[in-house]
Amino acid sequence: MKWIRARLADGNDEKGSACAPGAFHALLEDDRVLPVRGDPYNGHERTGEILRLDDVRLDVPVVPPTFYCVGLNYTKHIATEGLKIPDKPDVGYRANNALIAHGEDVIMPADATKVHYEGELVVVIGKRARSLSPDEARGCVLGYTMGNDVSERNWQKSDRTFWRAKNTDTFKPMGPWIDTDVDIENMETVVKVNGRESTRFHTNDMLFGIDTFISTMSRYLTLYPGDILWMGTDGHSPDLADGDVVEVSLTGLGTLRNRFVRER
Amino acid sequence: MKWIRARLADGNDEKGSACAPGAFHALLEDDRVLPVRGDPYNGHERTGEILRLDDVRLDVPVVPPTFYCVGLNYTKHIATEGLKIPDKPDVGYRANNALIAHGEDVIMPADATKVHYEGELVVVIGKRARSLSPDEARGCVLGYTMGNDVSERNWQKSDRTFWRAKNTDTFKPMGPWIDTDVDIENMETVVKVNGRESTRFHTNDMLFGIDTFISTMSRYLTLYPGDILWMGTDGHSPDLADGDVVEVSLTGLGTLRNRFVRER
Repeated sequence: MKWIRARLADGNDEKGSACAPGAFHALLEDDRVLPVRGDPYNGHERTGEILRLDDVRLDVPVVPPTFYCVGLNYTKHIATEGLKIPDKPDVGYRANNALIAHGEDVIMPADATKVHYEGELVVVIGKRARSLSPDEARGCVLGYTMGNDVSERNWQKSDRTFWRAKNTDTFKPMGPWIDTDVDIENMETVVKVNGRESTRFHTNDMLFGIDTFISTMSRYLTLYPGDILWMGTDGHSPDLADGDVVEVSLTGLGTLRNRFVRER
Repeated sequence: MKWIRARLADGNDEKGSACAPGAFHALLEDDRVLPVRGDPYNGHERTGEILRLDDVRLDVPVVPPTFYCVGLNYTKHIATEGLKIPDKPDVGYRANNALIAHGEDVIMPADATKVHYEGELVVVIGKRARSLSPDEARGCVLGYTMGNDVSERNWQKSDRTFWRAKNTDTFKPMGPWIDTDVDIENMETVVKVNGRESTRFHTNDMLFGIDTFISTMSRYLTLYPGDILWMGTDGHSPDLADGDVVEVSLTGLGTLRNRFVRER
């Protein structure tokens, strides 16, 4: 089952659609969009309306109460960036201001000098959860989507926190949809720049897996419906330039495409 | 003007109050609670109802889209904790799962060994803002409240991030209300443990002030209505024990009181 969050595309608002103003949740079946009342977390019912994918503008599939992000979870990436391999799963955070949808532009600030992509698997929490064992961990997951953890490497080194290196407006593309049924064990992450493959890795080749993270985190904190957990990245990005188009694809999850443009 | 977020106290729901179920926003005048439809950010109107403070249970005054928190912003605290004085205002993050209201208990996990308070001024953003000069910065502020940035110092040292040291469930008491009119320049922060004064400092004695932070942040990111910015702390906390009651008071903002109890 595929969930999107969308708005009516420009010019469609005046049709008097049954959709609520602003963003709404919908099921995606092929290119048919089936809006619901409610949401994937607290219950929903189909409105009966059927739209086409061309009729809507995709928004990020979820705006999380808390935005978790795993750093340093793939050995090649850690080595390339000259960092130390962690000995336990300490999760980090990103910020909602930076989220943009599939198809929207990443704006590189005028003083950003070394902008990289990081293609990541995103876990979307569906149910309130606390103190889960690793075996129970997947029980609180709604589904999966993709994220691009855009990073300015010089700020990442010079600043005490990742506030602008990773959370500048538009630096967190996510989407296009949440899929409730994917095969994590047999998933590949492929990142293309301007149509040419730049990075490829086995998605589940993680130092600490999804079950370990959810179980460890839930010992100390409550996970809430809509919370997201970005699982980290492997490989190395080239320095991105004005106009570059980056496509993150994970097996079964489609493609998250965003153009990188220089702030003017 | 004082804003609270509240729920009806136990036993009052069946009175058929005009208040929406769940939390509602209200103005506080002395001990009179004046509920509104809407909220302080997008517009509101009084419902006409008048409740008493005893009739309601206070919730945190705001649940932020993004939860910003300044670390290392007072020189004594930096020296006592053996840390380096920052040369620029790099903001950090905290997490919504950890928020609790005035009067609720902080639960210290069974394996927490060194739990400290940090009494802080909290800035609440009222308007969407981007690229503000220091002179313009206050224009986006709705008002001020207080926070206790509860910290487990051993985890703060042993973990790569602050995920459990500072974001364990219940580790972020905030409230009791947002005041739109306070005199930051003449404000003192006082923290008491079990009724005895433990820390006192001039609130505005910051390395980097509110205007500098808001202006610097807004160069790279959009601030949204309801975002919060905790301004850091001075002084040093004793190790807190099961049953300790911590009271954070800032001139004009009342008292944020929470009991610390050991997880059982």
